[in-house]
Amino acid sequence: MQLHNFNSGPAILPKEVLDQAAAAIHDFNNTGLSILEIGHRTSWFVDVVEEAKATVKRLMNIGEDYEVLFLQGGATMQFMQVPMNLLDENGMAAICDNGVWGNKAVSAAKLFGPVTVVADSSDKKHTYIKKDLELPAGTRYLHITTNNTVEGTQWHQYPQVNVPLIGDMSSDVFCRPTEFKKFDLIYAGAQKNMGAAGVTMVVVKKSLLGKVNRKIPAILDYLKHIEAGSLLNTPPVFSIYVSLLTLRWIEKEGGLVEMEKRNQEKANLLYTTIDAHPAFYCPIEKEDRSIMNAVFFLTDPTKEAAFLALCKQHGMIGVKGYRTVGGIRVSMYNALPLSSVQAFCDLMNDFS
Amino acid sequence: MQLHNFNSGPAILPKEVLDQAAAAIHDFNNTGLSILEIGHRTSWFVDVVEEAKATVKRLMNIGEDYEVLFLQGGATMQFMQVPMNLLDENGMAAICDNGVWGNKAVSAAKLFGPVTVVADSSDKKHTYIKKDLELPAGTRYLHITTNNTVEGTQWHQYPQVNVPLIGDMSSDVFCRPTEFKKFDLIYAGAQKNMGAAGVTMVVVKKSLLGKVNRKIPAILDYLKHIEAGSLLNTPPVFSIYVSLLTLRWIEKEGGLVEMEKRNQEKANLLYTTIDAHPAFYCPIEKEDRSIMNAVFFLTDPTKEAAFLALCKQHGMIGVKGYRTVGGIRVSMYNALPLSSVQAFCDLMNDFS
Repeated sequence: MQLHNFNSGPAILPKEVLDQAAAAIHDFNNTGLSILEIGHRTSWFVDVVEEAKATVKRLMNIGEDYEVLFLQGGATMQFMQVPMNLLDENGMAAICDNGVWGNKAVSAAKLFGPVTVVADSSDKKHTYIKKDLELPAGTRYLHITTNNTVEGTQWHQYPQVNVPLIGDMSSDVFCRPTEFKKFDLIYAGAQKNMGAAGVTMVVVKKSLLGKVNRKIPAILDYLKHIEAGSLLNTPPVFSIYVSLLTLRWIEKEGGLVEMEKRNQEKANLLYTTIDAHPAFYCPIEKEDRSIMNAVFFLTDPTKEAAFLALCKQHGMIGVKGYRTVGGIRVSMYNALPLSSVQAFCDLMNDFS
Repeated sequence: MQLHNFNSGPAILPKEVLDQAAAAIHDFNNTGLSILEIGHRTSWFVDVVEEAKATVKRLMNIGEDYEVLFLQGGATMQFMQVPMNLLDENGMAAICDNGVWGNKAVSAAKLFGPVTVVADSSDKKHTYIKKDLELPAGTRYLHITTNNTVEGTQWHQYPQVNVPLIGDMSSDVFCRPTEFKKFDLIYAGAQKNMGAAGVTMVVVKKSLLGKVNRKIPAILDYLKHIEAGSLLNTPPVFSIYVSLLTLRWIEKEGGLVEMEKRNQEKANLLYTTIDAHPAFYCPIEKEDRSIMNAVFFLTDPTKEAAFLALCKQHGMIGVKGYRTVGGIRVSMYNALPLSSVQAFCDLMNDFS
């Protein structure tokens, strides 16, 4: 049976990336060694890191004022690492709480200094993005989650602010050309649009760093990682390599312009199908709907189990909604082909 | 040319582990999905984590009072995570500084409370393990590096103390049967004896935790990881799977008794060869020599470059000493065959 992988992350990867990753486990670049067995300070691996950094910079169209790091711990580590590096009791973190992940960013930041939640969309169960933001005096940075994987909302126009902007782009980085330069720090767990689990990309303006009055443990200090060229300690070698393969694939396929074209086409097809059938409904404000994760429900919730069973029967993987939200969630990252969304929509039509 | 991989980590892995890892990238356990594409909360992956935990417990012969976690960030993260979870201003960390890694553990611990260096072998360039330890009053735990990868020393008999014992076993875990139960917390980056880079094993007695007077960010809180069964956030799925494959291989080959037999045989052969040739010398106290990493020098240092060139010519990978130590370092982890050590010794004989 043909499978359709709608996992929210770890998620589908391009087949050629998988083939290249498997081949490198047998023999990396004709070295006679596995990618799992090479030293991280060899020129072989330094070349991998440097190419990955350069590709990120090209895709984001950013210059020398930004540094690219490949760290560990996922976005959850960044929830605390960002305020540890940028916030102290003399400043204020302004954070948008538009769902599960923004909320966790709020909790972690509070351990490092004052925090103001400048947007909270829980009044409507996070079915929209609250965009009018009032930043309190002394705001040191504004943190947004650019795409809310769990709730199915996405910022389509970033806020205009005169403080440093921080973006958790874990679930929509590289899904389209966007104003990366508006951000002073971007982070993303790789396991959705840019590789496998185990590595977290951090893109940061160096000028933002070194200003808080605390001693930061080396492993959590962005400046120390920058000085060490992302090789402060043994990095997640294989995960970084899979990210490089995925970044190469994005460029080869036509870059972010092509990714947007494909992602928009998939999202249009799915949302149009949802809206066309009274048996389904999507509660998300139309202007805030995510092109990465579509969250929707059955109008008659007693039929949800039957629909999920049908999905399973037809090889549709990962379409059950997040445990706190319920319903259906269809994730459509870069590597998901249109044919999978078409197959899913066909199933919706049949069910309806 | 046949390669011999003496890398200090990331290091050689068993060929069948590499084959299984590559196969799982194409199709994990006949799921039709890659190991890189499956959700970390699926029963497929939960089974991987549970089997890995159970195998660790069997190999260590430890019981229900210990928890096994698979985290990220390597030993360097543990240098700060251990004191963050165990030390505050009311206690005292006693740390043995027997080399580069113990020294980093000291620096990181100082950010979280008082630290006493109870052993410092720098008087003899870390060529021995200082074993007579006097613990200061109020010592909350003693931290040792069980094997000093850089300097080539190893604890062969752990210290007898009446405080919790913490062991950084990154470079010698599972190299032999040992008194794991003497320890209250053991950690190890996987990329030497138990897999690929990207995952860190932490084995901890739960009774040790929850006693410091600070708020710990969730991602760094061992208790939170225990409650979440090592699935607090997206874990490094592939690296954990490679660790499971390596742990299975250790058991299948005969467990730690067999590993010790092989490792001892390799180490005996190499040290005997070094000691037999006046052209080479090993400055490490005989009783403290590591069976994992042999560090030695050429008696005439002007001949070192020629010897390293000869090694390269004969496919001997990773034998240059650590940058701050110099000389030669031959790492002989579990997966390294005796034939590689024999080939290296033959080369020494020829050179001599």
